[in-house]
Amino acid sequence: MMIREMIGAHPDVKGNINDALIQYIEECYSCAQICTACADACLAEDMVKGLRQCIRLNLDCADICVATGSIASRQTGSNEELIRLTLQACATACRLCGAECDGHASKHEHCRICAESCRRCEQACQAALQSMKA
Amino acid sequence: MMIREMIGAHPDVKGNINDALIQYIEECYSCAQICTACADACLAEDMVKGLRQCIRLNLDCADICVATGSIASRQTGSNEELIRLTLQACATACRLCGAECDGHASKHEHCRICAESCRRCEQACQAALQSMKA
Amino acid sequence: MMIREMIGAHPDVKGNINDALIQYIEECYSCAQICTACADACLAEDMVKGLRQCIRLNLDCADICVATGSIASRQTGSNEELIRLTLQACATACRLCGAECDGHASKHEHCRICAESCRRCEQACQAALQSMKA
Amino acid sequence: MMIREMIGAHPDVKGNINDALIQYIEECYSCAQICTACADACLAEDMVKGLRQCIRLNLDCADICVATGSIASRQTGSNEELIRLTLQACATACRLCGAECDGHASKHEHCRICAESCRRCEQACQAALQSMKA
Repeated sequence: MMIREMIGAHPDVKGNINDALIQYIEECYSCAQICTACADACLAEDMVKGLRQCIRLNLDCADICVATGSIASRQTGSNEELIRLTLQACATACRLCGAECDGHASKHEHCRICAESCRRCEQACQAALQSMKA
Repeated sequence: MMIREMIGAHPDVKGNINDALIQYIEECYSCAQICTACADACLAEDMVKGLRQCIRLNLDCADICVATGSIASRQTGSNEELIRLTLQACATACRLCGAECDGHASKHEHCRICAESCRRCEQACQAALQSMKA
Repeated sequence: MMIREMIGAHPDVKGNINDALIQYIEECYSCAQICTACADACLAEDMVKGLRQCIRLNLDCADICVATGSIASRQTGSNEELIRLTLQACATACRLCGAECDGHASKHEHCRICAESCRRCEQACQAALQSMKA
Repeated sequence: MMIREMIGAHPDVKGNINDALIQYIEECYSCAQICTACADACLAEDMVKGLRQCIRLNLDCADICVATGSIASRQTGSNEELIRLTLQACATACRLCGAECDGHASKHEHCRICAESCRRCEQACQAALQSMKA
């Protein structure tokens, strides 16, 4: 995986890689893409009125996922307090968006996929938070 | 101001505008731009090595400011828990970036301006958090 | 205006400011916010099905506006070829989104405001492109 | 791959998937992450002054990659003219950033990885542009 190689090549990291970090960077970018696409797919559904809250949560989740993934990609200096807060915000966004999408999963395959993506990203954020406490 | 008009034109808002909200949306986008530009100006300084932590905090702050401003711009449905968490993350990013920039303000005019922008954005986030508790 | 002060404080710019640049940085961030909010307001309308194309153009326009504003905020080194291409993309996004919003302006105040914002941003991009050719 | 499943689940796409599209959405998000991390790794190098132009191109490339990936993730309605222009801008950003990183690849492993990522993203953008002309 390119992210792992890349973080490992940072002069202050030098191969001493936090696996939980790599995982959630990857999940954040992936979830940002999936949520952007789910918002768009919901918009095209006949029952779009019933998917408004879902679209809103999708868009919010995409926004915080990109920001969190970008912030987590930096190893120069430090910003632990902010990383912790963005991880918490991102985990919450994924939990709420995932729960909403889950409620539409039986009707809309895109919501089923998005719920899965959100669950994985939430878990990756939680694991990273745990690894920071250690 | 266009943001105020725009939020007021949302079908669920209809002129019933939260002033604290308008203020921090505006400050978030403004601070995102200022932090992006301060990171870039720091990079061009002779003493760039001494500004690494500042650049890192600037870039992180720009990321969370854009995400927070975008999330706050949505009035359809609701996502209060996430708004609260992103406001807290954004206020923290602004506090840390502002403090770092303040330390370089006597030498670098761009850091002086950025510290001021961060302070305003932090205050706007805090005021919005207060208005949500009420 | 803070953007003007900030760009003027860059060590390689030193007060030698391109006014067209300042203008379009400001319009890009403003239009990103307005388009994000217009997508959200359209989503809340009863006739949301008739606003799908509008929402899509709004979201696309917000994405390219933020990227263009951020890229334009950098003065270190150079990247003229990319700036030109993002300006063209941004002007096109604003033209298309503005035209679509204009068609809904008589019914939806948020679309009227967004059309105006897009027009201003498109003009600022065109003026900046002109200033780069000179 | 999740992106392929997701795009295939859009009500207007229904499994009729453009492979070139999937490829470049994936490369755009990946390259955004890699460029963000390369900018950060360059910043931590002893010879940071010699990497200023590289950092600038990295940050610009990350910005346009995220925007392009996000815009390309939408299938509702259409926005072909903008997609074409953002693909061209993204391909150019990747070509310029890749060439700069290539010049530092023998000294900095992160620049070698980033050059490879940019090359792949540029090729994916070019292939997508070709597929749109067909």
